[in-house]
Amino acid sequence: MDEIVKGKQSLIFPHAPRIISASSVAGSKEAEGPLKKLFDKTGKDDLFGAQTWEEAESSMQKEACMTVLHKAGIDAEEIRYLFGGDLLRQGIATSMGVEDFQIPMFGLYGACSTSGEALALAAMSASAGYGRYMMAVTSSHFGSAEKEFRFPLGYASQRPLSAQWTVTGSGAFVVAGAEAFPDADDASSPENGKTGDSGEKTVRFSHVRISGITVGKIVDYGLKDSQNMGACMAPAAMDTISRNLSDMGRTAAYYDRIITGDLGYIGSAILADLLKGQGHDIRGRHLDCGMMIFDRETQDTHAGGSGCGCAAVTLAAYVLPMIERGEWERVLFVPTGALMSTVSFNEGASVPGIAHGIVLEHF
Amino acid sequence: MDEIVKGKQSLIFPHAPRIISASSVAGSKEAEGPLKKLFDKTGKDDLFGAQTWEEAESSMQKEACMTVLHKAGIDAEEIRYLFGGDLLRQGIATSMGVEDFQIPMFGLYGACSTSGEALALAAMSASAGYGRYMMAVTSSHFGSAEKEFRFPLGYASQRPLSAQWTVTGSGAFVVAGAEAFPDADDASSPENGKTGDSGEKTVRFSHVRISGITVGKIVDYGLKDSQNMGACMAPAAMDTISRNLSDMGRTAAYYDRIITGDLGYIGSAILADLLKGQGHDIRGRHLDCGMMIFDRETQDTHAGGSGCGCAAVTLAAYVLPMIERGEWERVLFVPTGALMSTVSFNEGASVPGIAHGIVLEHF
Repeated sequence: MDEIVKGKQSLIFPHAPRIISASSVAGSKEAEGPLKKLFDKTGKDDLFGAQTWEEAESSMQKEACMTVLHKAGIDAEEIRYLFGGDLLRQGIATSMGVEDFQIPMFGLYGACSTSGEALALAAMSASAGYGRYMMAVTSSHFGSAEKEFRFPLGYASQRPLSAQWTVTGSGAFVVAGAEAFPDADDASSPENGKTGDSGEKTVRFSHVRISGITVGKIVDYGLKDSQNMGACMAPAAMDTISRNLSDMGRTAAYYDRIITGDLGYIGSAILADLLKGQGHDIRGRHLDCGMMIFDRETQDTHAGGSGCGCAAVTLAAYVLPMIERGEWERVLFVPTGALMSTVSFNEGASVPGIAHGIVLEHF
Repeated sequence: MDEIVKGKQSLIFPHAPRIISASSVAGSKEAEGPLKKLFDKTGKDDLFGAQTWEEAESSMQKEACMTVLHKAGIDAEEIRYLFGGDLLRQGIATSMGVEDFQIPMFGLYGACSTSGEALALAAMSASAGYGRYMMAVTSSHFGSAEKEFRFPLGYASQRPLSAQWTVTGSGAFVVAGAEAFPDADDASSPENGKTGDSGEKTVRFSHVRISGITVGKIVDYGLKDSQNMGACMAPAAMDTISRNLSDMGRTAAYYDRIITGDLGYIGSAILADLLKGQGHDIRGRHLDCGMMIFDRETQDTHAGGSGCGCAAVTLAAYVLPMIERGEWERVLFVPTGALMSTVSFNEGASVPGIAHGIVLEHF
């Protein structure tokens, strides 16, 4: 099994599963940001037809799942297993968001690293031949996350400059096995562009694969400031990136881009320093979804974007199309999470981080 | 891949992974119940040396992980991936409980079905050759769960008779791959009984394997009473059990026992009725961990035990040793979860259920 198992924490898939479609649903502030033209769907009032922020987040997840199925040109019942999660207590946005699809499901929690966790497990399952198609979905919502972790929006609390702005958005992905079900990857088939019953067009990726993963450990530098999550998560990103490089015998230069999930401006600066200390130079090839999704000058999101939805919608709307077109050949995608709850930080516990690495390649 | 993929939701592993060790750490009330002599460790004040219920729960998970490693005779760094979860918001008991081991980890949430979710993913990963050893761990704590979902214990709130008593306990399991790493299963080696540095003896199982799984869907009958979780979860248990039987072409009689996680007295009665409606008779072969862990006459736990720890410690302390000794040849283990949060039920949402099926066999 040396063919698959690499180093301490990584896997390389000999027959890499493919990401055949991705969808992004985003909120109104995100729709005013730099990626505005790239999202599949955007909301106007961030309620998405619901009465509460929590229901709104579930509506977004449902919409993201429906959209990704339409884009892939497949039905929900063709998805073997679903891997999903969010930031809310007991992952309630996912439970309520995906229940209508009746897909056998695994609920996940990895804070804002959940999109990486979901894609890793979907790729592991697809590569092992456990089914033809797997789905990964995650979401976050500014309104529900502020209520969950800080204060309800109605309180109009002031936020420190180190705070990040939780992205309102949901991203979903269909992962197809390559070896066990070679016909699952008929991406370049004439199906592409077909208009389905819903009036939505099939838009499959033909050239994106997940060639490997690096599963993250919990990394705790003892930081306790829940309003500076970038700093709490940067050590975990460093750990996963340097482990990916050593497990796979690579240097940072192997990747066209190393893209972290939501370190924001503060965390990204810390990451560069920490990696330099490890002998890795990521200058010129590092991007962070939390820095890309909002405009720093005009949108006033302090240290940048964050949340389960941040990395997911940026991956779906911007990163994967770049790989599909071959503008980037190899990307290390590293969603980062801050492992805390309101109870843990009120009880004085530290905020450890976790990050999972997904190796995405053009083929 | 027809060899592995069965029906709509199930997998049968051609080279079944083994459970080589299991551990159980339980609270003081559990230590007075019918299983009292079977637990590896029990606490006296339910604080396990900590200052808060949440920290106590993390301490229990840490203790369960250490104990299962000692019993398996392996070090933490030999575990490739850890799958774990609990009931608290943002799975904080697991994050804090397992961080010291520095094992690459996947955080899970499946309410009280999490032990099934963790064992399923551990078995899937072990069977695919993603590593020699995987670990699964879950926990719950009466004090932290009452605070999370109902009222802090200090309020002395009265509980309705349909309510269940959250088990204070944590169970951990080491799953070994059979095909990729045949030497991982040296269970009958002379190592057994060896005393390690910690003074604890190696106690490996030699005859327990996970031959298959059935991944559950979210099943929602629209029930809204969070104080009657047995009723909320019974439809999910029915769905997973009947799906397991149809996917695998079996009748209930194939199994010596079908053991649900924590339906309790009310949910178990409903399950029997629902399965009867599907043409399945489980009388005489159904057990429920929520009914086995406390004494109904003397312990006043109303509808029985519940929680992520309930199924996990009962599996570790009672069910697996019965399979190891060959007293049961085939067991369908079905932990059940109620998918809700305080926010969702305060906002009037229903309480859907989910259940995962793990097929355990003596070999």
